[in-house]
Amino acid sequence: MMQDFVIKEIEAAVGRDNVLTRWEERWCYAYDATDLAQAPEAVVFPGSAQEISKVLRLANRHGFAVTPRGAGTGRTGGAVPVAGGVVLVLTRMNRILEINAADMLAVVEPGVITGHLKTAVEEQGLYYPPDPSSADYCTIGGNVAECAGGAVAVQYGVTRDYVLGLTVVLPTGEIIDAGARTMKGVVGYDLTRLFLGSEGTLGVITRIILRLAPKPGARQTLAAAFPNLKAATEAVGLILRAGLAPTALEFMDRATLNCVRQMLPFKVPPQVAALLLLAVDGHRREVAERAAAMARFCREQGARPVMRAKTAPEAESFWRARRAISPALFKVKPQKVSEDVAVPLSAIPELVGRLEQISRHRGLPILCYGHAGDGNIHINVMYDHNIPQEQEAVGPAVKDLFALVRQLKGTLSGEHGVGLTKAPYLGLELSQEAIALQKRIKKAFDPNNIMNPGKIFPGGGS
Amino acid sequence: MMQDFVIKEIEAAVGRDNVLTRWEERWCYAYDATDLAQAPEAVVFPGSAQEISKVLRLANRHGFAVTPRGAGTGRTGGAVPVAGGVVLVLTRMNRILEINAADMLAVVEPGVITGHLKTAVEEQGLYYPPDPSSADYCTIGGNVAECAGGAVAVQYGVTRDYVLGLTVVLPTGEIIDAGARTMKGVVGYDLTRLFLGSEGTLGVITRIILRLAPKPGARQTLAAAFPNLKAATEAVGLILRAGLAPTALEFMDRATLNCVRQMLPFKVPPQVAALLLLAVDGHRREVAERAAAMARFCREQGARPVMRAKTAPEAESFWRARRAISPALFKVKPQKVSEDVAVPLSAIPELVGRLEQISRHRGLPILCYGHAGDGNIHINVMYDHNIPQEQEAVGPAVKDLFALVRQLKGTLSGEHGVGLTKAPYLGLELSQEAIALQKRIKKAFDPNNIMNPGKIFPGGGS
Repeated sequence: MMQDFVIKEIEAAVGRDNVLTRWEERWCYAYDATDLAQAPEAVVFPGSAQEISKVLRLANRHGFAVTPRGAGTGRTGGAVPVAGGVVLVLTRMNRILEINAADMLAVVEPGVITGHLKTAVEEQGLYYPPDPSSADYCTIGGNVAECAGGAVAVQYGVTRDYVLGLTVVLPTGEIIDAGARTMKGVVGYDLTRLFLGSEGTLGVITRIILRLAPKPGARQTLAAAFPNLKAATEAVGLILRAGLAPTALEFMDRATLNCVRQMLPFKVPPQVAALLLLAVDGHRREVAERAAAMARFCREQGARPVMRAKTAPEAESFWRARRAISPALFKVKPQKVSEDVAVPLSAIPELVGRLEQISRHRGLPILCYGHAGDGNIHINVMYDHNIPQEQEAVGPAVKDLFALVRQLKGTLSGEHGVGLTKAPYLGLELSQEAIALQKRIKKAFDPNNIMNPGKIFPGGGS
Repeated sequence: MMQDFVIKEIEAAVGRDNVLTRWEERWCYAYDATDLAQAPEAVVFPGSAQEISKVLRLANRHGFAVTPRGAGTGRTGGAVPVAGGVVLVLTRMNRILEINAADMLAVVEPGVITGHLKTAVEEQGLYYPPDPSSADYCTIGGNVAECAGGAVAVQYGVTRDYVLGLTVVLPTGEIIDAGARTMKGVVGYDLTRLFLGSEGTLGVITRIILRLAPKPGARQTLAAAFPNLKAATEAVGLILRAGLAPTALEFMDRATLNCVRQMLPFKVPPQVAALLLLAVDGHRREVAERAAAMARFCREQGARPVMRAKTAPEAESFWRARRAISPALFKVKPQKVSEDVAVPLSAIPELVGRLEQISRHRGLPILCYGHAGDGNIHINVMYDHNIPQEQEAVGPAVKDLFALVRQLKGTLSGEHGVGLTKAPYLGLELSQEAIALQKRIKKAFDPNNIMNPGKIFPGGGS
């Protein structure tokens, strides 16, 4: 338990109004988007890197844990303060400090909502591509800490590919700049990318320099319905290798489709087994022809029908349905375990095919959808925690899934990170030597293990 | 000095034929592409990660330095064994282990010549984009260790953007895998990108998994001649912001142009002050129109003439001239200091403009060319080391340059790394706190500082 005088010192550092300690307030910051929760002992809303530095120095002195968070939309428990202590909520630091069209970059604080940034840069004819499904409410700081992806990653890359530089408060309180305002830079170790996806365990990000792209002249959206799973999943690799350069290449299976069917702006025939949702962008003159080529190619792979959004609002309704999938799955069962594994492109058909066996074997519906163009499939094991045999079957089903993914030379997480939920499985992917090295890196940053302890590493990282 | 019994132990680890110790043999591996040199005490050609592991364990036990190298084409002294000990030459490990069209990736050993890999993947309809000017003789392992760039980085990114995973022998001898065979992956800290650009100081890379792109359907090359430097450098940012999406956007000033003038497949009028060399690629149908739009845009910015390569061999002769610049500059003076600074895009005109002042002030020709589309300009301070006042002016000119670059919020190195030559200037870019953190990372990997000591950090890194 944090003693009162420690709370007082924190209040002195950040201002009394920026510290919450009442039970019901603390519980508001106990969660992320998993169903895990643990209340922190205090909730702190810092206003600057300097204030964060003071809090972290106090944490080292008094030995309390600090868990940074943005909007709490994470999928692996990364923002759940399992070691108690302080939750550091970065939503007050939400200024867009600069959008520089001449340098094609933006400088932002971590609490900026990703969607707000996207809108703001588009108003200046620029484009910030990463588009996690939670873009309307997640924060850019969380995106950086988790290395968030999204639907356009297949063309544009993930958050990592847009971060040029960072200001970070180290766990020991020093404030450092990493990276640069330049498109390239190789001076010293790449701390910028080391912080990317480090899940709040190596420091607190307080400023982010983001590379921007030119706003695409036009974009078209298509949906290709396939009569069987195999044809749909095999089409993914064929589309990519053909150089059709999709901007997005998303997949959903029949059960997923059923959950969002009535949101789609077109009728999907009942015999359809899987849907690919595709986009192409580029110069206005080129896009129509590219979309037509993409549609033709999908038909050659057996897709019937292939539907093309005729207007921008119609295209947006395709994508709104796509973004609605995650909550819509609860129509099937009241609980889910959602994994975001990724496999090599050629292994997608086998992955999806063999999930049917796991589903039958474990007696649980398994729904899948996601960023097929990256081999990054969101796999949802659905269950009802009031039905004991379902509750008991979930863990074994997830273990089956991870074993399958590793057999296919895949990774346990394409974009959600390890957090709490995947920490027990880290050894399935990383060797003991690699984990030991990562723990030495953690210690080089955070000798007292105050930053988000309990995450990534099985047993807590120290 | 390494004692004879230590050499014997190394010979037992890698085979006697794979260790060179004669004076003239050792001097063959004393150099890189700078004019720095120091002979190692032994030259070792390992054949496997296991052999490297044995050598590194011996280095820890007996306290000798190990400097890994590929072809020795580095520009900052990174492969020069300033601490003596062993040079580990990775050219025997030169197998392309896999080119997997279905997964769109390749797996290679570090000693593969980059150009050989490019050719091999193109034969399968794929494309490995990074194209350092030394691609015909540099090795992919060196490209990874330095995070090499090249002319197409403006569209395709640098080496970092293509490395999915690595096998690395840690300085302490453990062999670990980092990253994955998947397009995305966020399990644990991003060791892959930490090794990228770490200049051989954190371990020895023995296997590289590379993402491949589809081979572009077509590419066109243009050269736009500008009547003054300002118009040329300002056109760079305008081209990028206009969404013309150049595949390459290279710059050369008048003095550079004079060095390669007769290699160019077209006549450049004498009044031309600067040349932009541009490429566009994409679908066959689209490329001609894009190239025409690019040519139109350059003319609107004042370029006269804008020349378009009519055939692939003609385009290749444009690029051959571009790649020949670095050695051709010796026509001006027998020595040069070549820096590869990068600045924000809007600062290119000021950087290039103010170099003329430094040149006048220091009495030395300064020639610049390079990857303008990334703000990454290669700046060459030319001198004759037999002329004392020129020799003495070089250091101050480089200091002026670095001060200017930092004032423009640029970086000291866009793609060549720090090595030996920039180590004294590290503090101009990184704070003492950031350097201290990087040294703690180095220590977490290499507690006895055996891997390439003396590089990156002023004073040697421990």
